[in-house]
Amino acid sequence: MPIDAAIIKILKKIVGPKHVHDSWHQRAAYAYDASNRDFTPDAVVFPATTAHVAEIINLANLNNFYVIPRGAGTGMTGGSLAVEGGVVMPLTRMDQVLGVDPANLTADVEPGVVTGDFQKLVEAQGLFYPPDPSSSAYCTMGGNVAECAGGPKAVKYGVTRDYVLGLEAVTGAGEVVATGVRTAKGVVGYDLTRLITGSEGTLAVITRITVRLLPLPESVRTITAVYDKIDDAAKTVAAVFSAGIICRSIEYLDQAAIGCAESHLEIGLPTDAEAILLLEVDGDPQQAERAAERVAKVCRDQNARTVSGVDDAEAAANLWKARKGLSPALFKYGPHKINEDIVVPRTKIPDVVRRINELRAKTGLTMVSFGHAGDGNIHFNIMLDKEDPVALEKAESAVVELFDYVLKLGGTISGEHGVGISKAPYFDMEIPPAQMEIMRQIKDVFDPNHILNPGKMFPPET
Amino acid sequence: MPIDAAIIKILKKIVGPKHVHDSWHQRAAYAYDASNRDFTPDAVVFPATTAHVAEIINLANLNNFYVIPRGAGTGMTGGSLAVEGGVVMPLTRMDQVLGVDPANLTADVEPGVVTGDFQKLVEAQGLFYPPDPSSSAYCTMGGNVAECAGGPKAVKYGVTRDYVLGLEAVTGAGEVVATGVRTAKGVVGYDLTRLITGSEGTLAVITRITVRLLPLPESVRTITAVYDKIDDAAKTVAAVFSAGIICRSIEYLDQAAIGCAESHLEIGLPTDAEAILLLEVDGDPQQAERAAERVAKVCRDQNARTVSGVDDAEAAANLWKARKGLSPALFKYGPHKINEDIVVPRTKIPDVVRRINELRAKTGLTMVSFGHAGDGNIHFNIMLDKEDPVALEKAESAVVELFDYVLKLGGTISGEHGVGISKAPYFDMEIPPAQMEIMRQIKDVFDPNHILNPGKMFPPET
Repeated sequence: MPIDAAIIKILKKIVGPKHVHDSWHQRAAYAYDASNRDFTPDAVVFPATTAHVAEIINLANLNNFYVIPRGAGTGMTGGSLAVEGGVVMPLTRMDQVLGVDPANLTADVEPGVVTGDFQKLVEAQGLFYPPDPSSSAYCTMGGNVAECAGGPKAVKYGVTRDYVLGLEAVTGAGEVVATGVRTAKGVVGYDLTRLITGSEGTLAVITRITVRLLPLPESVRTITAVYDKIDDAAKTVAAVFSAGIICRSIEYLDQAAIGCAESHLEIGLPTDAEAILLLEVDGDPQQAERAAERVAKVCRDQNARTVSGVDDAEAAANLWKARKGLSPALFKYGPHKINEDIVVPRTKIPDVVRRINELRAKTGLTMVSFGHAGDGNIHFNIMLDKEDPVALEKAESAVVELFDYVLKLGGTISGEHGVGISKAPYFDMEIPPAQMEIMRQIKDVFDPNHILNPGKMFPPET
Repeated sequence: MPIDAAIIKILKKIVGPKHVHDSWHQRAAYAYDASNRDFTPDAVVFPATTAHVAEIINLANLNNFYVIPRGAGTGMTGGSLAVEGGVVMPLTRMDQVLGVDPANLTADVEPGVVTGDFQKLVEAQGLFYPPDPSSSAYCTMGGNVAECAGGPKAVKYGVTRDYVLGLEAVTGAGEVVATGVRTAKGVVGYDLTRLITGSEGTLAVITRITVRLLPLPESVRTITAVYDKIDDAAKTVAAVFSAGIICRSIEYLDQAAIGCAESHLEIGLPTDAEAILLLEVDGDPQQAERAAERVAKVCRDQNARTVSGVDDAEAAANLWKARKGLSPALFKYGPHKINEDIVVPRTKIPDVVRRINELRAKTGLTMVSFGHAGDGNIHFNIMLDKEDPVALEKAESAVVELFDYVLKLGGTISGEHGVGISKAPYFDMEIPPAQMEIMRQIKDVFDPNHILNPGKMFPPET
């Protein structure tokens, strides 16, 4: 399905000549994402309206070329890559906040709005949009909905799915649909909103999002706990929940992650510790204070070496900067990274930590883990040189072993990164044939000619 | 598609002879639900296992008869009625709580577990399952998931959808599928869990549910505010949110509802007041106390005649009994009830209240409204004698007028009752043709022979 000059001409007519990029260097700029893979698209086209999106998709259906929707390209699993060629379609020109309604706690945004910008905008009005992926300074609301992004605050506040009330989207068949509601409740018809949310751009292109908001918590307290034994850190997570405390975040860094963050930021992290937990509580000031004290006690009871309340906003910001900067900083350990975001029931975290230690010993590879311990959502990274075939093979078999173990523990192979191309080969480890067949048929309903985002999610046909 | 003796014989072989009811009086007991309509099924069959459900559905596909899944028959929109004949299949024998995991805050239940029993069971362990339909003493978890039930605590805690992590279900094609996860996060594949949730038994029969739980709030405070003007009550709802307070419930009763509750329970409600608000806050004791004081101040600022904190647990329980008993008590106003559960953005509640007053004046019919004001979810009831054709026509055109107005305000025609048969004729007022066509095709994917729950949700073919 090549994009020829005639199609480029029509695309230019639809969105304007300067909004179609077809030179080699322009296309190369949209060949990659945070999955560290590389596929140069045949063209890059930037729609400004829902009508543009529909026209481009209709053209694709008529002329049999692929359309790959894209936000800011911060995805971890290759969801925005043109793996089989075609037109990459960044939604970045559609970047308007269409309205914020403080009294009804809702907002309407275009897909290209940067998540961090939106968070700041609503916070200035005393409102709160909790989904908070690490890439929030760059990533877009549309990409977040397409991947059902999570982030550290999911422990208390849930993930993107829990904040999407309604969508406007253009299906792979070129139909503009408006799903869901603008209200707190709504049960009319099948839940197309949540079906499109997390569908990784394979069913429809999101062109407008109605989200719900919360009042901004008055007070946030961060507690840091340092552990000699990572097992004690893991047990702390379950103990905090058993004590009936709902932290908004419980993040952890293992020793390799601590070392990496420290060499990156030089903020005096204890590099000899096996783990650090970063726990956050919020609410009104008295409530946050009381919860922080209770959390600190639980940490001490679970043998934390030191427990400190971070009253200093700057110090807290530094810690979060360390945590959020970890993913890119990891490359100091190797030119390539295999990055998985497994989830297990919280009480199983110690088991996973033990298994990762065994895999590290067995393979001799550098493995770094950190992440959203409060959700049981562990970002497990293997750093290596992919040009080394022995290391690559060892790493890949370690991943399969870990996935298998995670599924046995009642977990899932992805908590927030999605499947994309990175996990497509493992999709059927989690999804049995009957469910996969239903998903394939749902794909056919929305995108009968399979022009949207090919090669993603479903395992490669053999 | 008649059920003949041969099929009855096979059904008896599948579930055991005493678990197939085919006499007239046995069938009549499963002819109705809370929608006050009546359709006698050809037989009633009670499966005890997922395998039974699959066998019954396979038999239906082979022999071309309808299967209508049923919980406790408390639905308001006829979702469990055999409107086109067939076999009604109550899931009431599958009533086991399969496990509660306090450390991971999850539980597994069979669909026939009574919601109120489950709530009490987890509360005894310091845990909390917030979805709380008024029929909680009778209704079942499976029915709640099928309808995406709501209830008063949705303001803070969301609806059933927000607590379903994963499902086991048998599709209309007879496939047993396990959807979703047992963990806090999970984004692998399309969201079949939420697609089945709220699908009103038209896609699959739910045979097992994994729910998430919360720690039980330590303290709950109820505030009652009495208003001379219903408009002031309506404005209070928006003012509470604008003050940044998240109540867990904000319920309201209009004057007719107050009178009805009082005559039913005789607890000294002010029958001259135009409205009562019932507001609930929770959290740790200090937090709940502080929030209750702030809520009371907002009520006074919005001209409440009296505002009282209900410290007495018995008094609070009485008020909730009044609120929860309203729906059946309404029949004192007329032998029949048209009962709608519209939702509007919270700030539009005064507009809806005004429109209801206009409709009452215009039609001369008894109209009672109450409900979940905090969600903008209003239970709007018209009491009448359906044998009176003039009253019936007036009532039906008032409903259409109100639906039309609600949709113009950015609302939805159902917040928690579902579409069923009651709202099927109005479904296309809210759902445009492109979305409806997608929904029809999704129905075809799950239930290709359309044997599951016919005549529901989609508008009657003309």
